[in-house]
Amino acid sequence: MRKLIRVDMTEGKIQVEELAPEYAALGGRGLTSGIVASEVPPLCHPLDPSNKLVVAAGLLAGTTCANSGRLSIGAKSPLTGGIKESNVGGNVAIKLGKLRIAGMVLEGQAPEGKLFYLLVNKDGVQLQPANEFKGLKNYDLASKLQDKYGKKVGIVSIGPAGEMKFSAASIAVTSTNGTPSRHAGRGGMGAVMGSKGMKAIVVDDKEAPGVTYADKEAFKEAAGVFRDALREHPVTKPGGGLAVYGTNVLASIINEAGGYPTRNFTEGQFEGVAKISGETLHDVIKERGGNPTHSGCSTCIIQCSNEYVDKDKNYVTSALEYETIWANGANCGIDDLDAIAEIDRLCDDYGLDTIETGCAVAVAMHAGVKAFGDGAGAIELIHEIGKGTPLGRILGSGTAVTGQAYGVSHVPVVKRQSLPAYDPRAVKGIGVTYATTTMGADHTAGYAVATNILKVGGFVDPLKPEGQADLSRNLQIATAGVDAAGLCVFVAFAVLDIPSGLEAIPQMLNGQYGWNLTLDDVMEYGKQIIKTELEFNKAAGFTPSDDRLPEFFSKEPLAPHNVVFDVSDEELDTVLDF
Amino acid sequence: MRKLIRVDMTEGKIQVEELAPEYAALGGRGLTSGIVASEVPPLCHPLDPSNKLVVAAGLLAGTTCANSGRLSIGAKSPLTGGIKESNVGGNVAIKLGKLRIAGMVLEGQAPEGKLFYLLVNKDGVQLQPANEFKGLKNYDLASKLQDKYGKKVGIVSIGPAGEMKFSAASIAVTSTNGTPSRHAGRGGMGAVMGSKGMKAIVVDDKEAPGVTYADKEAFKEAAGVFRDALREHPVTKPGGGLAVYGTNVLASIINEAGGYPTRNFTEGQFEGVAKISGETLHDVIKERGGNPTHSGCSTCIIQCSNEYVDKDKNYVTSALEYETIWANGANCGIDDLDAIAEIDRLCDDYGLDTIETGCAVAVAMHAGVKAFGDGAGAIELIHEIGKGTPLGRILGSGTAVTGQAYGVSHVPVVKRQSLPAYDPRAVKGIGVTYATTTMGADHTAGYAVATNILKVGGFVDPLKPEGQADLSRNLQIATAGVDAAGLCVFVAFAVLDIPSGLEAIPQMLNGQYGWNLTLDDVMEYGKQIIKTELEFNKAAGFTPSDDRLPEFFSKEPLAPHNVVFDVSDEELDTVLDF
Repeated sequence: MRKLIRVDMTEGKIQVEELAPEYAALGGRGLTSGIVASEVPPLCHPLDPSNKLVVAAGLLAGTTCANSGRLSIGAKSPLTGGIKESNVGGNVAIKLGKLRIAGMVLEGQAPEGKLFYLLVNKDGVQLQPANEFKGLKNYDLASKLQDKYGKKVGIVSIGPAGEMKFSAASIAVTSTNGTPSRHAGRGGMGAVMGSKGMKAIVVDDKEAPGVTYADKEAFKEAAGVFRDALREHPVTKPGGGLAVYGTNVLASIINEAGGYPTRNFTEGQFEGVAKISGETLHDVIKERGGNPTHSGCSTCIIQCSNEYVDKDKNYVTSALEYETIWANGANCGIDDLDAIAEIDRLCDDYGLDTIETGCAVAVAMHAGVKAFGDGAGAIELIHEIGKGTPLGRILGSGTAVTGQAYGVSHVPVVKRQSLPAYDPRAVKGIGVTYATTTMGADHTAGYAVATNILKVGGFVDPLKPEGQADLSRNLQIATAGVDAAGLCVFVAFAVLDIPSGLEAIPQMLNGQYGWNLTLDDVMEYGKQIIKTELEFNKAAGFTPSDDRLPEFFSKEPLAPHNVVFDVSDEELDTVLDF
Repeated sequence: MRKLIRVDMTEGKIQVEELAPEYAALGGRGLTSGIVASEVPPLCHPLDPSNKLVVAAGLLAGTTCANSGRLSIGAKSPLTGGIKESNVGGNVAIKLGKLRIAGMVLEGQAPEGKLFYLLVNKDGVQLQPANEFKGLKNYDLASKLQDKYGKKVGIVSIGPAGEMKFSAASIAVTSTNGTPSRHAGRGGMGAVMGSKGMKAIVVDDKEAPGVTYADKEAFKEAAGVFRDALREHPVTKPGGGLAVYGTNVLASIINEAGGYPTRNFTEGQFEGVAKISGETLHDVIKERGGNPTHSGCSTCIIQCSNEYVDKDKNYVTSALEYETIWANGANCGIDDLDAIAEIDRLCDDYGLDTIETGCAVAVAMHAGVKAFGDGAGAIELIHEIGKGTPLGRILGSGTAVTGQAYGVSHVPVVKRQSLPAYDPRAVKGIGVTYATTTMGADHTAGYAVATNILKVGGFVDPLKPEGQADLSRNLQIATAGVDAAGLCVFVAFAVLDIPSGLEAIPQMLNGQYGWNLTLDDVMEYGKQIIKTELEFNKAAGFTPSDDRLPEFFSKEPLAPHNVVFDVSDEELDTVLDF
């Protein structure tokens, strides 16, 4: 039986309980959204004690299943005002699985000015004072905790941005290399953790009991089929696009498709793309002796990560990813990989979502705070955030607030969360996902780019409105299921094209838990998660009016295709109407 | 027939048209809300060209009716995201009435960086370049325009805050003394005017044709009855509370009632109230040779205004009012009238809503940016706004953004607009108005303080939830009618207690326009205005969840009565359900 840890930060009390019956079949996003929807008042202020931060491992966490190391972190979001599941890799989820811990719920609020960290190991759970760590950046914090608890522990932590309760604050999770370089970036989960007075959670799985299996043989067989699918598909296989070039393999592809948002979403192609593409990134890292192909998440066999080094071969950051490079590159008109890598490192260190931050900087550039293309200027701005200067507080509050403070109306947000790295005018399927997902603009909630651009799972013309609603709906449902299982969203590339891989998912769950799920059940589970989230958002005041892109996407044609976003409101309203 | 002036700022074209049939019976808030609801896309960005700024005189503007000089300014609000009517006195509305102009609609957007002003007189309407006025504060701007067009013109203008498109930016209107000291403060209307590229509107009624009357005798008779009611009622009569002490007569009363929000709504009484009360204000002004009883709005016979002078008898500001003194006084823990007067002058000069600004400063003080009680510090903060520094941009974006930037959850806003000067826990009727009005927290939309505290129009116990919903509903409906007529909201004090005064309102309208309105018709008209506004807000994404006070008002008891806000959600939902 998996356990749930509840930490009452107001009283400093810890309770370890068996998962309640209504939560017993839930994991990952299913568990975070289930608890938030049941236990958090939808109209509470996200930084008030009545909000709860839920950290949950996926259902398959701790098993040998490939790419099952994702961690879900949920709460009412200070950025969107709605429910949030922010998904992150790293080495923590499998440790929780091995400790038979389904999740942790941070409740209440520590007394003003007090800071704590949580230690979780085979002996139990302890709350420790962390005032000595106040203001520490994530890298220093991780080092200190690793010095104390060993290099192999997993750490969930916040930097200064989370302590200052910025809406763009992320929660860091240690990578397999021990750096705090995996981030639950979206929706300001770091601010909620900061509001609780929790600086870090240390998870040590030494001598952990490990996962139990209802039918280990059945599990192993299904896990093998699943692994084979990942190893077979051209996108996910060893030597495939993701392994060789990382996620930034997309830069050239999306730019070619005219959907690479440039200079605050005013253009669809970036003249400097060749300088920051996946191919260039690979060559630079290789040439300098860094690691272009790296597995940042436990159990990962896709290896989309990398370790970026500077000209002197010193480690700078890990997983310099497509969205980060875009947000702080093309979207700011910056074509300097070293500057972008430094920004990524600073964001990881201060504890900031690289997407929200890059989009906020781009809006500030639109307002003339710095010039588009000014890499050194962008780096200065990130330091302003980390230092908590007034300018930093504007940017750290996200893209919508930055637009408001500078009187800019060209602000690419949905539900006050900034759009990721695909222009919805030229990749309309992802535009439907941005508009309709419960999460605010989020590409991972239903990655229609796969089918619009990469022709995975069929093909739907990215420039036409037809078929995008159905595409987004199916992907959003499937993704919710994948998120609950704790699988990496990239497994979708493989299983959308290889049916045996898809079938293996319920089979693994059945082998582990003794259930009798079919694939339809997993999809139904995905639907239920989204319904739960929709109900919370409705009670928090969201309506179909919130399921819309900003007006300029339907008014300003995007070069080179000169397209606007033209999926109708009526179609958008059908997407999650199930 | 009244005319409507449309100014296309994109093309620089002006169109003077007869009021369209669907607008012909509308005035003031009826006309602003009617045009905004019909012509502005509810989901547009408030600073985009598709928003429209409507400046409308009331139906009785230009007549001899007492206190008929209010001006309504409406648009989609950058602060709330909903429809907005911001109501202001001064000398402009009656000039428009005499020029037979019902209203002006600013549409589109001037080319980037261009600034204009509008000249309206008996010969027509002209758009003039105003680049020379860029960055000017309201007082200097008014002087320059008066030098050019004469001391008697009326001026509608924005200061630097409006040019910078701050959500707390007001629109100034000249007072009878020629100073730009009357402000359409709420909801960021100055930002919308700034986004259009309009710096000022000069209204010159020299040789204006004047108002036509369908039945002048009938009008005069009704106007006499109406005037008598104002002269008779203890609150509004010459020598009454408003005339002698101004609106700040309320400070002692509301403090005594335990509903005087102190230090960001954490207490209900202010220990320094005697230093900033209406009585003290009166004595200070009188002693220094200022003017404690002044009529700031054309046709006003109540004379709640004043002219505040410094120790050297130099004019500082006009109409140092209750809400301004509270927001920048008790709410910031400041008990220094001179500091508060300087803040008022600065807000008028930069073009800022004194309520939103004071509440934002109080939240910043809550976060420790300055100490509560630091008058000099508060003055510094207002200068930051005027200069457009990053800190100023946070504060200028309003109370909600200030809370977000500083991670403060104790943020007194409804629909992102800050609460005015009555704590809803101790004056529950006004709490119902704050929660439910279409405008975001606004006391003038249904001034239940009258009946809760002043026992005007009966008495409803301010500390009990019973009866508040009905009280607020009736007042909100009547107020919408009063706003459409262009009457000062203070006439309500008299006409709520003197039925003949109330009956005189439809009779004056009938005399002027040849209509056959009954009092019921006026109330029905008020309902229609609110319905129109509700429809716009619904389409803009508002739901009953937006008709709620922040959670802390129902959780944190307020001393000295130790009360929370306990009007139920169900009751709130009945208020505007007609």
